[in-house]
Amino acid sequence: MSDQKITPRAEDYSRWYQDVITEADLVDSSPVRGCMVLKPHGYAIWEAIRDDLDQRFKATGHVNAYFPLFIPQSFLTKEAQHVEGFAKECAVVTHHRLKATPEGVIPDPDAVLDEPLVVRPTSETIIWHMYGRWISSWRDLPILINQWANVVRWEMRTRPFLRTAEFLWQEGHTAHATAAEAQEETRRMLEVYRDFCWQTLAVPVVMGVKTASERFAGAVDTYCIEGMMQNGWALQAGTSHFLGQNFARAFDVTFQNKEGTLEHVWATSWGVSTRLVGAVIMAHSDDEGLVLPPKVAPVQIVLVPITRADNQEKVMAFVDGVAARLRGRFRVKVDDRDNMKPGAKYFEWERKGVPLRIEVGPRDVDNHAVFCKLRTEPGKFSLPADEGLADAIGAVLDKMQAAMLDKALATRKARTHRVDSYEELKARLESDSGWFLVPWTDDAENEAAIKAETKATIRCYPLEGQEEAQGRTCFYSGRRATHMAIFSRAY
Amino acid sequence: MSDQKITPRAEDYSRWYQDVITEADLVDSSPVRGCMVLKPHGYAIWEAIRDDLDQRFKATGHVNAYFPLFIPQSFLTKEAQHVEGFAKECAVVTHHRLKATPEGVIPDPDAVLDEPLVVRPTSETIIWHMYGRWISSWRDLPILINQWANVVRWEMRTRPFLRTAEFLWQEGHTAHATAAEAQEETRRMLEVYRDFCWQTLAVPVVMGVKTASERFAGAVDTYCIEGMMQNGWALQAGTSHFLGQNFARAFDVTFQNKEGTLEHVWATSWGVSTRLVGAVIMAHSDDEGLVLPPKVAPVQIVLVPITRADNQEKVMAFVDGVAARLRGRFRVKVDDRDNMKPGAKYFEWERKGVPLRIEVGPRDVDNHAVFCKLRTEPGKFSLPADEGLADAIGAVLDKMQAAMLDKALATRKARTHRVDSYEELKARLESDSGWFLVPWTDDAENEAAIKAETKATIRCYPLEGQEEAQGRTCFYSGRRATHMAIFSRAY
Repeated sequence: MSDQKITPRAEDYSRWYQDVITEADLVDSSPVRGCMVLKPHGYAIWEAIRDDLDQRFKATGHVNAYFPLFIPQSFLTKEAQHVEGFAKECAVVTHHRLKATPEGVIPDPDAVLDEPLVVRPTSETIIWHMYGRWISSWRDLPILINQWANVVRWEMRTRPFLRTAEFLWQEGHTAHATAAEAQEETRRMLEVYRDFCWQTLAVPVVMGVKTASERFAGAVDTYCIEGMMQNGWALQAGTSHFLGQNFARAFDVTFQNKEGTLEHVWATSWGVSTRLVGAVIMAHSDDEGLVLPPKVAPVQIVLVPITRADNQEKVMAFVDGVAARLRGRFRVKVDDRDNMKPGAKYFEWERKGVPLRIEVGPRDVDNHAVFCKLRTEPGKFSLPADEGLADAIGAVLDKMQAAMLDKALATRKARTHRVDSYEELKARLESDSGWFLVPWTDDAENEAAIKAETKATIRCYPLEGQEEAQGRTCFYSGRRATHMAIFSRAY
Repeated sequence: MSDQKITPRAEDYSRWYQDVITEADLVDSSPVRGCMVLKPHGYAIWEAIRDDLDQRFKATGHVNAYFPLFIPQSFLTKEAQHVEGFAKECAVVTHHRLKATPEGVIPDPDAVLDEPLVVRPTSETIIWHMYGRWISSWRDLPILINQWANVVRWEMRTRPFLRTAEFLWQEGHTAHATAAEAQEETRRMLEVYRDFCWQTLAVPVVMGVKTASERFAGAVDTYCIEGMMQNGWALQAGTSHFLGQNFARAFDVTFQNKEGTLEHVWATSWGVSTRLVGAVIMAHSDDEGLVLPPKVAPVQIVLVPITRADNQEKVMAFVDGVAARLRGRFRVKVDDRDNMKPGAKYFEWERKGVPLRIEVGPRDVDNHAVFCKLRTEPGKFSLPADEGLADAIGAVLDKMQAAMLDKALATRKARTHRVDSYEELKARLESDSGWFLVPWTDDAENEAAIKAETKATIRCYPLEGQEEAQGRTCFYSGRRATHMAIFSRAY
């Protein structure tokens, strides 16, 4: 927290994002390359996300479990494509002891591991090793397990929340008797993610399927949700993979079906991470600082008493009464610091993205009312401080949450452009970022060529509206279109 | 889950513990040495513990945050005693990439880290490094942060829940302006732990202070809670450390006090881990399998319908109605598997420690009643399936929870023995394990000698009853006693 100005979005979007995060006190860099510290206000956003998602996972029949942080190096090589994707940049544990020497401590040469261990970049391999022990009959299926965990991918270029070496996430890993059941699960969890992003984060993500080049290493199909940020770029907010029998084959996991025949098990995996915190910041915040949808705001309501020595007791008693009435239903903070002026407090809580500020002065006490300011609206308004206050505030916050979604949806629609030729795409990309919906013939080489020239990538083939491709020609190759594709720059 | 017999406690307590865990399906061993997989039923116990504790931490003013998994090797050496305790057996990351070779993947020789990273065995060092950036004035204090995380200590001998290489825990790290405030925090959190163990786990732990030889590496004082297991051994269930200014000095963390003078900051840290799951299993389970206090049971009530083809619809409709009435207030499971007989289901849920089983047959439906069996009582009883059912069950489970605490407390009292001479201690240790309360003169050498001869250690100087030592002589040295000490074998 400081008085430093936040760089306006229009001036430098990247610096704006960094400034918003710094001024809202969400994270700090750490002495470990690429690893960030999630400070309390930043971690609390993740907690709200986690608690909401965890309920949704349990409501769809999933249970949590926990698998080891370390994966034997050899496991990563068992699934042919998986090793390509994940064996590269990872943290490798080679010793299990330090040793003191006159020059300081060193990894003890006498404590070298027989087989190096990799800090999990994702857990398919160790989990499917375990599933091999747990599954023998159709009666053992389905397994619907989720894990909340930290993972490590040695990233070269990092950005808080969006890309860090260590991050927090959840990874669902399910095992099924049939392809159809696994495919249904893949789509079910994609829909859980979509609904969560729309309703809880107020980020109207689009569901789609990835092209082969953006597919998860080891998946048959990778589905995704993509959100549009305020600069028009896309952000992949979550993925859900149909893994076919790839991991079951790699780890030899079979089951006896009802007919008594041995078959390989069908798999899915799906995950979202602390990246979602970055998505919610980028989607809603403004040049004044952080803006958060009420459902994930660590503090939903801040009460600021405006007192002088001669009325302090009266005002504080009233404020405490109002706070007590609101707690239990809302996350409430009373800012009674006596070394700060109200204006400075308003400034601080605006930067920190608190949805509703309530100011209470002596006149409000006399009127038995509270004076309210929403983070997203210019005006202030008064509410009676009676039995109906909590309901009234609930309605105000629900309306704010809905308005944020509407606004983000309007932005996404306004900045999703239909273009018919590659020349048009290139021209528009220079002046106006956004999403570009085009008729397209699935082709990895053409995809790579466009990426190389424009840095825009195919975010997905959106699940809705594919019928539009029928009878059209590819905007790039002129061949018969196979899909409608969204091209965009992306985080 | 199997039909394998559980080894009786009296025959082999260690095997009994392993059998209970296996038969309740709580964990599985993993291919990574010393790391266990927490299976859904085991992880759910930890979730219940975590959620309860997290509320208690927040109610006492703490906030959660997240710090990096990795700690630069040099950090561990900054606090002189800390390095002795923690730089020994730890996982050391030396490379950040794997490389494919004709013989398989290897840590890439071109990707050696400049400074090795240690997987956190505990986070004082990295956290105090960060606190150094965050603290400059008395206005920045106190900092009351907790972290839920995984940690790694390379243990040679492991036992599920009690000692594993990787485990899950919480670690509180607080920073204060005065020694008195930090000492108060240390004791406050010890009391939070004590109350939690008594009320939630039904484990009547004793609070005490550790001797110098059992103190946390880097602490001025280590307080602990010790629980008695059914074999009379002690289990350290949690610790709370007053760290003085040791870490502030090591990481040069100072603040300007109200008088404008620079001072080093005062610190505490406190933690409990998945070890608590082991404690609750060992404290309550019996020769039939797992016994769990209702407050942490993943499934509190299991409903078993007893049906024939001609009444299945009627019974299931009734069971679903009862379950719907109980859900929201209790964690309820309906066991409607049709490939198992009721008796086999009873057996399975008893082994899994479900506190209350409800059997519903056609006659119960006609009587509008349910037939109940508590895990801890021999008899069965009927309850009317009316509006008052949830309250009635709530009362039954509260009573069960209280009875489990009473029983454990009675056991602890009965097996805490006052002995006056070392000969008596040795004689009793051979025939009867338990806790031995003795007048004692604080002396590290004598402590080590007793440990070497008997394997019994000083669990703590209990906070209550120290006045008993006045005017007495040490049971070992014959010198004037300084403390009352509890000796015991321990996990």
